Amino acid sequence: MKSFEKISQSRLKSYLKLTQKKYRQNERKFLVEGVHLVDEALKSEWEVECLIVNEEESGRFGEWENGRVKEMVKEEGIPMYECSKKEFTELSDTVTPQGIVAVVKIKEYTSQDFWKKLPKHAIIVVLDDVADPGNVGTIIRTCDWFGVDGVLLSKNSVELYNPKVLRSTMGSIFHLPIITEIDLGDMIQGGRDLGFEVITTVPEDGEPLDKFSFPERSIIIIGNEAHGVSQIVRKHAHKSVTITKYGKAESLNAAISCGIILNAWRDKKMSN
Amino acid sequence: MKSFEKISQSRLKSYLKLTQKKYRQNERKFLVEGVHLVDEALKSEWEVECLIVNEEESGRFGEWENGRVKEMVKEEGIPMYECSKKEFTELSDTVTPQGIVAVVKIKEYTSQDFWKKLPKHAIIVVLDDVADPGNVGTIIRTCDWFGVDGVLLSKNSVELYNPKVLRSTMGSIFHLPIITEIDLGDMIQGGRDLGFEVITTVPEDGEPLDKFSFPERSIIIIGNEAHGVSQIVRKHAHKSVTITKYGKAESLNAAISCGIILNAWRDKKMSN
Repeated sequence: MKSFEKISQSRLKSYLKLTQKKYRQNERKFLVEGVHLVDEALKSEWEVECLIVNEEESGRFGEWENGRVKEMVKEEGIPMYECSKKEFTELSDTVTPQGIVAVVKIKEYTSQDFWKKLPKHAIIVVLDDVADPGNVGTIIRTCDWFGVDGVLLSKNSVELYNPKVLRSTMGSIFHLPIITEIDLGDMIQGGRDLGFEVITTVPEDGEPLDKFSFPERSIIIIGNEAHGVSQIVRKHAHKSVTITKYGKAESLNAAISCGIILNAWRDKKMSN
Repeated sequence: MKSFEKISQSRLKSYLKLTQKKYRQNERKFLVEGVHLVDEALKSEWEVECLIVNEEESGRFGEWENGRVKEMVKEEGIPMYECSKKEFTELSDTVTPQGIVAVVKIKEYTSQDFWKKLPKHAIIVVLDDVADPGNVGTIIRTCDWFGVDGVLLSKNSVELYNPKVLRSTMGSIFHLPIITEIDLGDMIQGGRDLGFEVITTVPEDGEPLDKFSFPERSIIIIGNEAHGVSQIVRKHAHKSVTITKYGKAESLNAAISCGIILNAWRDKKMSN
């Protein structure tokens, strides 16, 4: 059974702070939990500062070392620490932790770089104050499936590094550019200058999705679960689209709408 | 400020038991919480046994009485009780309760009745051991939006009357027939006898959704989040459908897949 270096109390203490949003924002680091997410982080271009395992389960991760972890720990010199079960529980956000956490440095995408690198035909999804962590994570996962060019989160959307958001992305956070804390007014202006059209999704009275034609460069806005798209976006939108309703539900969930729209965009793009 | 009859301790005790699954199953009743869901229950054909309000907020519901509640309480004789804030907290599943709960009797749809009443062109969604309450509720809400003819939940799916499922349905539980605890083998046999074809959704190697032609009578199977569709369903399925992937995500969320498939079904049905 492989054992790893015991984590120092001062190091542990600094990582425990990352369970709080304000420290994640200041330190520009966050915690990623569980075998699948840690694996996705290691495979990605994001920088992993270290791995921490529960000492009672370190044997498992000694095994796991034969694969990717061994490679990373050895070749890239990523430190691997162990801590007690009790300490691990404090680091973890889940009820039944899987025994491994990675400390990941936030990858800073600058807005300017992002816009510059977009292809001629592009689609971007903007979350306009989306509040539910599960929705945000699922939208990112869905955008990843459909190969969206990037996701932008408005200032009042839920924080990207919230553990529930991370879990719901299923690792997709590491697959596509995501820019946080955007100002919606600036985004609309910046997008327009590059020939993007802003499309809002509305529960009624928009153009029906099956007849909708997507511009070459589209910005799809997903509004807040309760209040829809914000005033400034509504004012500047070029088009609005509606998924036709046949039953009695008042609305569709934000992530479901997003998935249906992206699938339609792909269908139409491919048939052109 | 209107006040209501104080709830008796024995009545309160019997309703508190409904916070547990086994009692909901035995008593064939469940609790519905918050203004929107209670309103949906009152508007529906489901039987509301009584309403319970937090005495500190009963004034609000005295006001609310001017609308639907007054009508119901008076015309249909639905009793309305109040309890203390502390008692209310025990009834409630939410962190910030809205101060009103309804006790609702489970509407029993028999399988036989259900199959008999289906139209010539029909679509049914079957949840094959879907485990996440948010997914089950969101799928029901989505099925309601698209006017699906019914939703069937397999025995190992999460319980329909779980408070998280109820919240995620946003009231759609009261809008369409939902049959629980179904045996998947019986369902496949019964559906076949009535000319239904069973369609599974798979992450790869199914017929691409954009080229897929839906049978006149379709049963769409949504599999478990981790294990997909179960063995018996896989064995008897007529067709499988895949939503084409363009990015790097391993899979789509179950509710997202369901929404995309139902939208495609409506598009194709309407263009025939």
